[in-house]
Amino acid sequence: MENRLQQITAEIISIGDELLIGQTINTNAAWLGEQLNAIGIKVNRTVVISDSRSEIWAALDEASARSQIIIMTGGLGPTKDDITKHTLCSYFQTDLVMNEEALARITDFFEQRGLPVLEVNRQQAALPAACKVIHNFRGTACGMWFEREDRVFISMPGVPYEMKGMMEDEVFGKLAAFYHRPVIRHRTVLTTGVGESFLADKLKDWEKMLEERKIALAYLPSPGMVKLRMSSYLEGDRDVEMDFRQCEQELLRIVGEYVYGYDKDTLQEIVGELLRQQPSTLAVAESCTGGTLSKLITSVPGSSDYFRGGITAYKNDVKTSQLNVDASLIEAKNVVSHEVACAMAEGAKKLFSADWAIATTGTAGPGGGTDSHPVGLIYVAVAGPAGCKSIEMRLGKRRENNMDMASFAGLNLLRKEILGQKADL
Amino acid sequence: MENRLQQITAEIISIGDELLIGQTINTNAAWLGEQLNAIGIKVNRTVVISDSRSEIWAALDEASARSQIIIMTGGLGPTKDDITKHTLCSYFQTDLVMNEEALARITDFFEQRGLPVLEVNRQQAALPAACKVIHNFRGTACGMWFEREDRVFISMPGVPYEMKGMMEDEVFGKLAAFYHRPVIRHRTVLTTGVGESFLADKLKDWEKMLEERKIALAYLPSPGMVKLRMSSYLEGDRDVEMDFRQCEQELLRIVGEYVYGYDKDTLQEIVGELLRQQPSTLAVAESCTGGTLSKLITSVPGSSDYFRGGITAYKNDVKTSQLNVDASLIEAKNVVSHEVACAMAEGAKKLFSADWAIATTGTAGPGGGTDSHPVGLIYVAVAGPAGCKSIEMRLGKRRENNMDMASFAGLNLLRKEILGQKADL
Repeated sequence: MENRLQQITAEIISIGDELLIGQTINTNAAWLGEQLNAIGIKVNRTVVISDSRSEIWAALDEASARSQIIIMTGGLGPTKDDITKHTLCSYFQTDLVMNEEALARITDFFEQRGLPVLEVNRQQAALPAACKVIHNFRGTACGMWFEREDRVFISMPGVPYEMKGMMEDEVFGKLAAFYHRPVIRHRTVLTTGVGESFLADKLKDWEKMLEERKIALAYLPSPGMVKLRMSSYLEGDRDVEMDFRQCEQELLRIVGEYVYGYDKDTLQEIVGELLRQQPSTLAVAESCTGGTLSKLITSVPGSSDYFRGGITAYKNDVKTSQLNVDASLIEAKNVVSHEVACAMAEGAKKLFSADWAIATTGTAGPGGGTDSHPVGLIYVAVAGPAGCKSIEMRLGKRRENNMDMASFAGLNLLRKEILGQKADL
Repeated sequence: MENRLQQITAEIISIGDELLIGQTINTNAAWLGEQLNAIGIKVNRTVVISDSRSEIWAALDEASARSQIIIMTGGLGPTKDDITKHTLCSYFQTDLVMNEEALARITDFFEQRGLPVLEVNRQQAALPAACKVIHNFRGTACGMWFEREDRVFISMPGVPYEMKGMMEDEVFGKLAAFYHRPVIRHRTVLTTGVGESFLADKLKDWEKMLEERKIALAYLPSPGMVKLRMSSYLEGDRDVEMDFRQCEQELLRIVGEYVYGYDKDTLQEIVGELLRQQPSTLAVAESCTGGTLSKLITSVPGSSDYFRGGITAYKNDVKTSQLNVDASLIEAKNVVSHEVACAMAEGAKKLFSADWAIATTGTAGPGGGTDSHPVGLIYVAVAGPAGCKSIEMRLGKRRENNMDMASFAGLNLLRKEILGQKADL
């Protein structure tokens, strides 16, 4: 029992040629890393290997020499020749036996869908005698749980939502029962409008404050934002949350103007919450972002409470006919301008009878720019109760990135406008 | 030289705690796997490790025992304490020297942006004497290329577009000069509307045909589609492309009705190309997909040639006022119905003066369903020159998945309608 109280480490083995040749991105490993970390299990390493007996065997040997928990995903589909399952049988010196409970569930799975049970699916109920079965209520491949001394080996299918369901339904609970573990706590502060190097330079002294409190810091940049993640192990009587709060207050004093949220917050959720509080409603008019903004806003469940709707006005005549933008304004100022962005926002606000509207206009690229209005020049406007505000962005030539950055900037501008309005009251 | 003609293998080492705890998804490894594979270099393994000297050292030892090319990404940012760079110095028994060319580029990088050069950025120009520098024209962290016998070790920053740029600008060329390698060819057939198990069952005999031709087959399922990937090494005089074509023809004979494209095709590109050929124009009216369809269509560069625009009609009154859907129709048939989907499509077609329009209506979830109209019940309609066609989908409770699946189905329905129209001529 003694060693179970030490830091528990895990290793993730992702099995599949589709991962190695990049046809599938390994989102499973990221999700597992995040979830395990949150319950205080440290992921030492993630490896991706091909669907072969020798690779699986070697990876199991290597991982179990380093880590206590070994989690495998993939290699269990009905068309995979069951290499993983057979390898696990040999590795744990056991045999396949037909599991009646699993067979009943697989049969049920197909019958509910009005489909016949194929032999390949029946064979998925043949499982190693030495394992505990991890049930899969979302698909046909069962999971397997093996124990060897203080080590646990878990094998699950690679379909993300099946794997996640199995982890949540059974595996986290089983792991909690098997191990006691020190807890890691994180606090992430989300910033926008400032680069990583400049943040690091401004935060030199603040980092010393973190060191003294044994808090590790990570800068996590991604398009349009830099996340600052503080991490610390719970040990003794120390109040980590209090330490985080103190460091956070000091951080806000230094770079508070760039902070838009915390931890798992998304800008679209923060903006949605602000709108809900007022309460007020939102519409969008998108040219260069082509639906990205609308998709972001509606990705939040319940967004229909405040989102009135949006228009993708890809053509000038749609801007004039639907959004009532003056054709002479487009002529005089160019369609890519502060003025047209504002006219679009005002038009959308009126068209959808909304309190606020965000509009974007620009050239997302990679083609289509001119000397005076190059690819990446984008205007973002927010119209609200007190008029319209717009910003100019000079971005690069990457279409998707430009669409994402402009949408993000539009939401952030709206956030600031709502907060500024509040501050003025 | 002899051994350079054998199958060249690579291993990817991704460095960074943000990957292990899942705050960043390892898209770099997927991209590298895909690109290396395409030029005939087989990726044996991908490992993700933390930013520590002992981990990096061990991973280098292990990888170089198995593979000839070792590609590291990450651990080179100005705030990372340069652990990777110092570890590489020790590993290759060399010292850091200031690289004047790199320093000039870094200075230039900041001056062009009107920003001062910080000391942390200057230090990024201090590089191991034993490496060849891989230039980074998109950021400040240089790449490093080390050779040891027939092995190559490459270290690059983890920012995806910097790393990709460095691979394309320099590394692929350098690798081609250093190694000769057998070439792998792939051909991927894209299917929709049929499950993996059923495909596998229908294709049993066809798989034997592939085996005889030494073509490996992979089933790659993802939401709404199953990709079938054929892979083969070029060897001797064999005409792999001819083998692929023959297998493909046989495949089309068996399951041709489900095939919508090949290789890197996307449904939005295929539909765009069909519209361009006619030529005709498209609009969308989205309720439950909330902008997803518009975003998908506009993700294609040049889509402004055929995409007139779209409306996200999240509220019933927007459906009636903007899309001219009869309020009594919504009352009589429910807003989630074949009839309202078609009325929305016809409305969007007219509103945007387009030849075709796609509409979606349903409850994306996770909340909001009723007994008669549960979460996941979605209608997708396509209006065109010859009237409107709609389909019913019964999906699950996962919001994002439902939005993606309904958008995909809308595009596929439009594809079939355009092709059917062609066939009728």
